[in-house]
Formats: sequence, C-alpha cells, structure tokens
Amino acid sequence: MKIDILSLFPDMFDGPLGDSILGKAKDKGLLDINITNFRDYSTNKHGNVDDYPFGGGAGMLLQAQPIFDALAHTQEEAAKEGISMGRVILLDPAGKKFDQKEAEKLSKEDHLTFICGHYEGYDERIKTLVTDEYSLGDFVLTGGELPAMVMIDATARLLSDVLGNDESAPGDSFSSGLLEYPQYTRPADFRGMTVPDVLTSGNHQKIEEWREKEALRKTYLRRPDLIDYSQLTDLQKKLLAEVKIEEE
Amino acid sequence: MKIDILSLFPDMFDGPLGDSILGKAKDKGLLDINITNFRDYSTNKHGNVDDYPFGGGAGMLLQAQPIFDALAHTQEEAAKEGISMGRVILLDPAGKKFDQKEAEKLSKEDHLTFICGHYEGYDERIKTLVTDEYSLGDFVLTGGELPAMVMIDATARLLSDVLGNDESAPGDSFSSGLLEYPQYTRPADFRGMTVPDVLTSGNHQKIEEWREKEALRKTYLRRPDLIDYSQLTDLQKKLLAEVKIEEE
Repeated sequence: MKIDILSLFPDMFDGPLGDSILGKAKDKGLLDINITNFRDYSTNKHGNVDDYPFGGGAGMLLQAQPIFDALAHTQEEAAKEGISMGRVILLDPAGKKFDQKEAEKLSKEDHLTFICGHYEGYDERIKTLVTDEYSLGDFVLTGGELPAMVMIDATARLLSDVLGNDESAPGDSFSSGLLEYPQYTRPADFRGMTVPDVLTSGNHQKIEEWREKEALRKTYLRRPDLIDYSQLTDLQKKLLAEVKIEEE
Repeated sequence: MKIDILSLFPDMFDGPLGDSILGKAKDKGLLDINITNFRDYSTNKHGNVDDYPFGGGAGMLLQAQPIFDALAHTQEEAAKEGISMGRVILLDPAGKKFDQKEAEKLSKEDHLTFICGHYEGYDERIKTLVTDEYSLGDFVLTGGELPAMVMIDATARLLSDVLGNDESAPGDSFSSGLLEYPQYTRPADFRGMTVPDVLTSGNHQKIEEWREKEALRKTYLRRPDLIDYSQLTDLQKKLLAEVKIEEE
C-alpha cells in the first residue's frame, strides 16, 4: 500500500512511523509511506502557505494553491508507478466517524493520501480535491497529523503480513463485535492479587466459557450498544442471561 | 501541567511532542512532559516486560510488575515536586469515549499519567493503578502511544497561553456546539472557483449572519445530533428554519 501524506510538519511522523509495527511493515516493503511538505509547492516568494480569512476573523487559513499543486505532484508520481489515485482523505471535525469498519475498507485500497490541516483551518476549495472526510471523534486538535497517524496505524495493521503471528487481528475488540475479556499473565499471585482459578485449571472448555462470559459482561456493562442479539450463539445467549442476573 | 508517559517506545513521541504547538508549550514551560520506558523497571534479568496469557491463546501480555514499579517511581518524583498523583489514564477500547468535554476536564488537572499498552494486551491487574480508562473511538491500534498523543494535544491546547492569539480555542467546532462554517482565503478566484460574494462585501452584519447560517447548515446536514434547540438564539432558529427549507 502506498500512503502519501501532505503536511507542514514532516518531522512529526519520524517517530510514530519509524518505530514499532509500522516501521517493520515499511521494512518488509508492505507499506510505502511518502511525506510531502506542501510548503515546498508554495508559489509565494516567501514560501507562505496561509493567509487571512475573507470576511475577517481571527486565525490564518491554509491556502488552496500549495495543496492543489503538491497533490498534483504526488498523484503524478503514483501514476508513474502504475498506482491509482486511490482515496484522498481530509481530517475534519465534520467528517464521518472513523471506526474499525472504515479501517477495514481503507485497508483494501492500494493508495491513500492524507491532507493534514493546521492553523485555524483551510480554504474550503481544498475540499474539491478530497474523496473522504473523516473525524476521529468530537474533539479538536492542533492539526491533522496525529489523527492521520492514528488512521494509518489502524489501517496498516490490517494488511496481511503486517502483524506477526503473535498479534493476530481477528481476536481484537470490535472485530468480534464484543470487547475483549480480561487477561492475566505471570505471576499467578502478584502482590496479593491473584488470577481467577479457572485460568490455571487446565480445563480448556471452562476457560473458553469463562472468556466468552467475561467478554459479554464487559460489553454489557460498558458498551451494550455493541451487542447484536441476532448474532449471538445459543451459548452466548445463556451466558449473557447469567451476566444480567449477576449484575443486577 | 506535568505529563508522565509510560511507554516501551519513547522515541515515538519525539516528533509529535517536539514540533508544532506542543513543542512551543514545552519551551514556554507550560508543559513538563516526562517519558519513562517501563522496560527499565523490569526485575527480569532479560528486561522482559511481557509473557504468555494464563489459560492459553495467541499473543503476549504486558506484565504488572514493570508498570507498577515505573508508576511508583514517577509518582514519587511528582510528590517531591509537590505535584499531586493526578489522573492515571489507560487507553483501552472499553474506556469512556474521549471528547472535547473530557479534554476540558483534563486540562484543569495539574498532573496526568498515560500508561501506553502494546502487544496483544496487558495483565488485568494493571487496572488497579488507573483512575480513568479512555477510548478514542471504535477502532484498534497497535499501541496506546498514538491515542495518548492525541489526548495530550487536545488537552494541552486548552491550557491558557498555549495557543497564540491567532488560534484562539473558543471559536472551534464543538466548543460552540456547532460545526465550523466554511472559510476562504486569497485569492478570491482560484482556478475558476470563487469565494461567496458576501465575504468580500465588507458588510459585517451580513457576513456574521452568513457564517451563522452556514455553521447551522453544516451541522444540520452532517451532525444534527449536535444541535441543542434550547440553546439556539432567535436568529439561529430563524436561520435554521431557512436552511431546512433550502435543503429539502
């Protein structure tokens, strides 16, 4: 997958995209991440990329020209490599909410471009370049870089071969439709806090049932909106009924 | 504000916390960010911090001991500086949803600690240390570092004096209860795309009314759940009625 990022702060990406799992994915050739500073495309002699808003008001807005020209360049480069225009993504508080389903959709594309805003906002005409507007949530950030990294992380880890065997994605929260059950590792007794007996019993059927039940309990208590009754197995329905009685 | 971060990947924070507005806030002494690699607190002779889950299954879990001891250390250091324990935050898909209201609450604390998980998950007993579990949204990431950075960015920009005059927070999306109106900067005609006439009219009352109406339009079309009718002024009610007719 090719990922283009248009940003005024390319250095912000060094750590997050260099370290950890995304760094490994780049090393394996699964991800080709290319960061373009659109200040380099400013036709203004001072390299300015922002200006005052028409109609007055505080703050500076990103101008259309540098972003239009930077994107034209990255799209040309992709075309030379035989890669499609793909999706051009703008992070905006008014965008559709990013979630695991959207991450799955994006992971099937061969090219994603992220336009990272900054300052007070951007010229509305930039939106004519964009195929998808996304929002991470109802909060305001100083720029689009961090949410772009979050989306890249969530999306790239779904590419086959990005996660090792030890970190398989299908068992995650949300992919199963339920939150994850509590987990414990050694020691069995840590400063007086002990692991539930069933997990050290060696009885695999009981362990599975405990995990299923605790996943249902957590989801029922914290995110009942995630439970789709029509998708539950008979065993899950029985366990959920027990949970409801226990939690009353 | 003091921010402690417990992470296995301290280098991930260099770019995002060094550049841009958060970097300036650190330089001004408004933010004291301290990153602790809890691997340094492992009592295991190989410096391991993870182990297999009790009861079997794929993936490795973070063990309790290194995180307990790293946190004890950072809290001791804070106490020496006369700083409270503050809030100890774990990023978890089952946590409460982070939003602008939560960012405002956190911005009033004098000390925040973020525990960043990684790998398949962590020992459940780590939660006994935690005052708040947060989730950014219904998606899965490779670790807690990126969501911690997002939360720090959203929170720190609300501290007084972090944003310059040009980037005042009260006009943002969500803080006013509505999404932001479209904005335009020079040139008035960019490759045939022109700015709405009203914005170059010089009539400030008309400009304000246009902005109010377009903010209502965007919110009505994209996030009607954000509109609280009881909070609208008479003018806003009138403008919203016009929007509804126009959009039918």
